[in-house]
Amino acid sequence: MKTTLKKTNGEKSTAVTGDENGKQGRLTTEPYPESRKIYVEGSQPGVRVPMREIRLSLTRAVKDGSVEENPPAVVYDTSGPYTDPDATIDIRAGLLPLRRSWILGRGDVEALAEVSSEYGRRRANDSKLDSVRFPNVRKPLRAKPGKNVSQMHYARRGMITPEMEFIAIRESQTREMIREDYRSHGKGVALHPGQSWGAGIPSVITPEFVRDEVARGRAIIPANVNHPELEPMIIGRNFLVKINANIGNSAVASSIEEEVEKMIWATRWGSDTVMDLSTGKNIHETREWILRNSPVPIGTVPIYQALEKVDGRAEELTWEIFQDTLVEQAEQGVDYFTIHAGVLLRYVPLTAKRLTGIVSRGGSILAKWCLAHHRENFLYTHFEEICEIMKAYDVSFSLGDGLRPGSIADANDDAQFGELETLGELTKIAWRHEVQTMIEGPGHVPMHLIQVNMEKQLKECQEAPFYTLGPLTTDIAPGYDHITSGIGAAMIGWFGCAMLCYVTPKEHLGLPTKEDVKEGVITYKIAAHAADLAKGHPGAQARDNALSKARFEFRWEDQFNLSLDPETAKAYHDATLPAEGAKVAHFCSMCGPHFCSMKITEDVRQYAKEKATDEQTALEIGMKEKAEEFKKAGLKIYQ
Amino acid sequence: MKTTLKKTNGEKSTAVTGDENGKQGRLTTEPYPESRKIYVEGSQPGVRVPMREIRLSLTRAVKDGSVEENPPAVVYDTSGPYTDPDATIDIRAGLLPLRRSWILGRGDVEALAEVSSEYGRRRANDSKLDSVRFPNVRKPLRAKPGKNVSQMHYARRGMITPEMEFIAIRESQTREMIREDYRSHGKGVALHPGQSWGAGIPSVITPEFVRDEVARGRAIIPANVNHPELEPMIIGRNFLVKINANIGNSAVASSIEEEVEKMIWATRWGSDTVMDLSTGKNIHETREWILRNSPVPIGTVPIYQALEKVDGRAEELTWEIFQDTLVEQAEQGVDYFTIHAGVLLRYVPLTAKRLTGIVSRGGSILAKWCLAHHRENFLYTHFEEICEIMKAYDVSFSLGDGLRPGSIADANDDAQFGELETLGELTKIAWRHEVQTMIEGPGHVPMHLIQVNMEKQLKECQEAPFYTLGPLTTDIAPGYDHITSGIGAAMIGWFGCAMLCYVTPKEHLGLPTKEDVKEGVITYKIAAHAADLAKGHPGAQARDNALSKARFEFRWEDQFNLSLDPETAKAYHDATLPAEGAKVAHFCSMCGPHFCSMKITEDVRQYAKEKATDEQTALEIGMKEKAEEFKKAGLKIYQ
Repeated sequence: MKTTLKKTNGEKSTAVTGDENGKQGRLTTEPYPESRKIYVEGSQPGVRVPMREIRLSLTRAVKDGSVEENPPAVVYDTSGPYTDPDATIDIRAGLLPLRRSWILGRGDVEALAEVSSEYGRRRANDSKLDSVRFPNVRKPLRAKPGKNVSQMHYARRGMITPEMEFIAIRESQTREMIREDYRSHGKGVALHPGQSWGAGIPSVITPEFVRDEVARGRAIIPANVNHPELEPMIIGRNFLVKINANIGNSAVASSIEEEVEKMIWATRWGSDTVMDLSTGKNIHETREWILRNSPVPIGTVPIYQALEKVDGRAEELTWEIFQDTLVEQAEQGVDYFTIHAGVLLRYVPLTAKRLTGIVSRGGSILAKWCLAHHRENFLYTHFEEICEIMKAYDVSFSLGDGLRPGSIADANDDAQFGELETLGELTKIAWRHEVQTMIEGPGHVPMHLIQVNMEKQLKECQEAPFYTLGPLTTDIAPGYDHITSGIGAAMIGWFGCAMLCYVTPKEHLGLPTKEDVKEGVITYKIAAHAADLAKGHPGAQARDNALSKARFEFRWEDQFNLSLDPETAKAYHDATLPAEGAKVAHFCSMCGPHFCSMKITEDVRQYAKEKATDEQTALEIGMKEKAEEFKKAGLKIYQ
Repeated sequence: MKTTLKKTNGEKSTAVTGDENGKQGRLTTEPYPESRKIYVEGSQPGVRVPMREIRLSLTRAVKDGSVEENPPAVVYDTSGPYTDPDATIDIRAGLLPLRRSWILGRGDVEALAEVSSEYGRRRANDSKLDSVRFPNVRKPLRAKPGKNVSQMHYARRGMITPEMEFIAIRESQTREMIREDYRSHGKGVALHPGQSWGAGIPSVITPEFVRDEVARGRAIIPANVNHPELEPMIIGRNFLVKINANIGNSAVASSIEEEVEKMIWATRWGSDTVMDLSTGKNIHETREWILRNSPVPIGTVPIYQALEKVDGRAEELTWEIFQDTLVEQAEQGVDYFTIHAGVLLRYVPLTAKRLTGIVSRGGSILAKWCLAHHRENFLYTHFEEICEIMKAYDVSFSLGDGLRPGSIADANDDAQFGELETLGELTKIAWRHEVQTMIEGPGHVPMHLIQVNMEKQLKECQEAPFYTLGPLTTDIAPGYDHITSGIGAAMIGWFGCAMLCYVTPKEHLGLPTKEDVKEGVITYKIAAHAADLAKGHPGAQARDNALSKARFEFRWEDQFNLSLDPETAKAYHDATLPAEGAKVAHFCSMCGPHFCSMKITEDVRQYAKEKATDEQTALEIGMKEKAEEFKKAGLKIYQ
């Protein structure tokens, strides 16, 4: 592995884009404070894994002024090229198609002369859409006849793809930091082994381990052959817990650039994937812009668009319209599809006694269709045909939980668990087709019923990755559902959930603003990281240790820079003590200069470190003399 | 039990207070929206328990326009007389001393001619303080010689005090609502039994149960005889989980009225107790204002004030100064004292190998004192004398965890658990004196180590109530530590923690603003309520059910009014759909008028309810005909 280091100048940069009508959008492209983008190279051509390195300042001993270096912290970076000052950002050109040579190199895809979807062709040929269309749309790739281009297919044949090696490096990065941490300042600090509930996270992630997990179905690599811009990532319980943010423009029309900026914004704060849930007009074109500019996998719920094609009349949906929509989106590059194939006719009456019925949009569309036609859900009856589409582009399944509970009262009921059992059957079918599959989960669940959700999912779905929305642990706090759900998300992440779908403060109430998106993403990064810590992920605790050491040593800037949201941490500190001097001062704003517990502790430690290797010794070694010395040295520490 | 209902006019009212210098303070005294204060009377004179009743609107069926009543929801109310429009608020007079006749009626206290504390007398006689002194300070009460006036003492003698009856009514209130809920719209909705981890919450709380729990030491009623203004509440694992908010003026001087408003503000949003952690000047006088106006118990950390009396030089602290401080505060009416008597000399060296040493202010003061004097912690050596003071006024112990971990790395180490064992020994001593006792807990703890904290506390401290700060489940999110800790708080509450000390977004960074206090309190109400739900508290789920039913039925105003923060919920909704009409519309802002999952669900339910008593029946009863009917009736539901 080679590491390429790029020094950034730390200046803020903002990419400004314009279209022919003179409208301009502003994209967030500042590097993170005191951070530089580094790239770790792998053995296969083009494997160059981006990471963020945070520079830390020196520790200066109060006693004698001696200094100690703090090694830089390396953290997982979902933000793509946008935070790299050396990258040229032009959303009209899109990101570089990093994976394209890998995909073509496998020799199992062909470029199509035009898109296969009838709807897609109509949009492509509509000159009224020229002004909103992404320029120079690439010809779509599709598996050659009889080929399967899924990562699961390769994995089962023993191939270690560049994507897998990329992921192995990406997931392992913090392990090296841990070791440095030990050397430089760990000094016996406990690394908690965690309680993994049966997960098996190795101390170093190898490409072979990635391959094996994907082959086994225990992890997925969402990576459509038509989305070569993405930086590969993995979703599975034996890897870092991931988070997803939703974007969309359902009620109020946003500009395309605003939509792209939403994606950039969500990934800047740590979103590992983004779901585009747009339901407005021009969603086909908007999706193209998002995909061409997204460094993370993009998921969608194709039934939403299919419904728009029949003007919102669920009963008029047909398999043909849906199929065309799948192909349309697959050829654009969508990496995973939510498919509500488990909403069976026989489960629908089970929701009648619920307090809140069916709350999933997809679930209610399909329930309505089933009732209107008195037939089984067409996603279920055509499931194998859907598999054929998925494997031709490597789109992953996100099997939707259309019957998830919408309230605490409805948690873990027969409808929910019946559907989960069906999703388990569908997982087996998908795997038979070697299609990557994850399973969506609730919803609203009180804390004591969370673990049984995870256990049942692991059992029914043979450890296919679980991807939950929260769950919300109470219904009584609209306006704060990022928090009610962050509690449940942290817990289910600990129990084995592989990806957590975020919830913003606007959940149940309205459309999230940019600030709401950030609040939701940070809350879910907290949940995911708390879960990694509790599982005993070998890399997780390093960042906590580095931040806590900075806090203890009053290295305020380091504390801010190591945090999930440096801007907010710094702003909150400055609100109380705005002077630059305060950020290097040996006290903090809570206690003021006259008294500070951490400062006192330094004296305590100094004493104990010098003389007490263990508590017995401590009690026996001339405490009295030491006390005198301490008095002389310690009484004036706040001069 | 008699219920007194008072109709409020719903108008906002704001009490304005002024002092002789013309400065004015504004206190928050608006009633909650669509709520009225009700009082439930008990059998003993003066037992009149305030609750909040939220009026709900009618449910109107889409199909035939028929209406159904929704019974009002009754919720626990910590806000005191401030939200009662019929109450006269004058902070210069203080709240009415509701408990005074109960206290005097027991015949075991005497009014002192002047305060016993030397410091208190000095302050009382300093004419320079006249302008900041609460007018007409009452003569302090103290137990007659040889008497013990603690609720535990009474409980062990079989007395059911008015305080206990008050609490029984207060804790039981939501049970009646549950039953109404069942009758009116429960219709088989599941009430989750919960997983209580050994807690034993009866279906109805009787005064005798309260007495028994207090006698057993498993619950405390913080209620100093010199704080007759408080509305009695209880802290114990077999009752509703409580929360505490801290207020204080450490770095920036606030006016006395601002301090009182902070207390009012925290209790408005649900704080069950308030700790006054002020360290500025005039804290003696500020405390008097807070106590005379506080409907909730007030806690303090007396060592902070004692330290100020020796100008911040920990090593100059003496038992005499500390003792005088305890008496000073006890005679003002402080209801519980944090006492760091478990910070033993032999534990101090154990913190040397920590990443973040000693982070508790009280812990570091005492560690410094111990080291400077080469003597055992004077709070430990004088513990029985402290008990004598506590029982003369009924001040409860909150045995401080001075060695709590300040980082994930330091969680559950020998220093922390060594101190906890000592707190267990001290609990036995306190109980021998019949002094009410709770135990403080961490701090920073990864999720998988939370339960062992709770289990060890229950074992070492014989089920004395646990009172934790969070715990924070990761260190990497300064600026969001209300969330990192809200996760841990919800979990430890579920496992048996009786009270959760809040954390605001400013934790580790600066002093909380009013908005930060509200954010912290709401987050902790969420945590406490999620814990009640998970424990299976028989009253907890009623509010979730009522809110979710309102949500399902698009009764937007009811949804706002039932939420923990109606203002924010309404503001967030209005940000997307501000029109008044939108709040009665049968769709919500996420999906827009053309498509709404909840609306579709209504059709599904209607269908299933009519014909499907169980799933088998559902499958057998002429699905086809029903489908036709559904098509006719259902296709135009969005007209």
